[in-house]
Amino acid sequence: MEPKTPYYAVIFSAQRAEGDNGYAEMAGRMEELAKTMPGYLGFESARGVDGFGIAVSYWESEEAIANWKKHADHAEAQRRGRAEWYENYELRVARVERAYGMNKAR
Amino acid sequence: MEPKTPYYAVIFSAQRAEGDNGYAEMAGRMEELAKTMPGYLGFESARGVDGFGIAVSYWESEEAIANWKKHADHAEAQRRGRAEWYENYELRVARVERAYGMNKAR
Repeated sequence: MEPKTPYYAVIFSAQRAEGDNGYAEMAGRMEELAKTMPGYLGFESARGVDGFGIAVSYWESEEAIANWKKHADHAEAQRRGRAEWYENYELRVARVERAYGMNKAR
Repeated sequence: MEPKTPYYAVIFSAQRAEGDNGYAEMAGRMEELAKTMPGYLGFESARGVDGFGIAVSYWESEEAIANWKKHADHAEAQRRGRAEWYENYELRVARVERAYGMNKAR
């Protein structure tokens, strides 16, 4: 995934609380739903065994991010995240200025 | 860690190759070294059992990022990363426009 810069990244760093409590099912559903949103460019995430994870979603514009944030199903997921799934989180909206990479399989 | 926006994030997403090959020792050393660099604001990372990880470092300016990129020890770590430690990676430099969070322990 390497769209033309500039584009936007939402960096979500979070410590999960104990237990699943419906998290995995919701996370999968949100990932699928995000793909259907206007301006969606991509998503990647990693979580260690300690429960700390970073998820980054990529968007064409700040408007696309705002639109995704207020989607009703996503708003409900956010509410449950704060109440049940996360001990703490930080969310950062950033403008990607430049990007490069390497892929040995290419 | 919540500095005043705007500041900069380097988002490094990478698939590790098999085996350690000195990676863990170098990663620890680079994390300590980065802390001594001018304009360093913070670092966080997560890697899943599949070897895919996301590391984000935060900096005051693009100049601070450029300065860190060209540090001799870091340049050597980058070279070994491309040769030995990663199957693929993407690196993105982004300007953090806004941030917010939650911490239940606070």
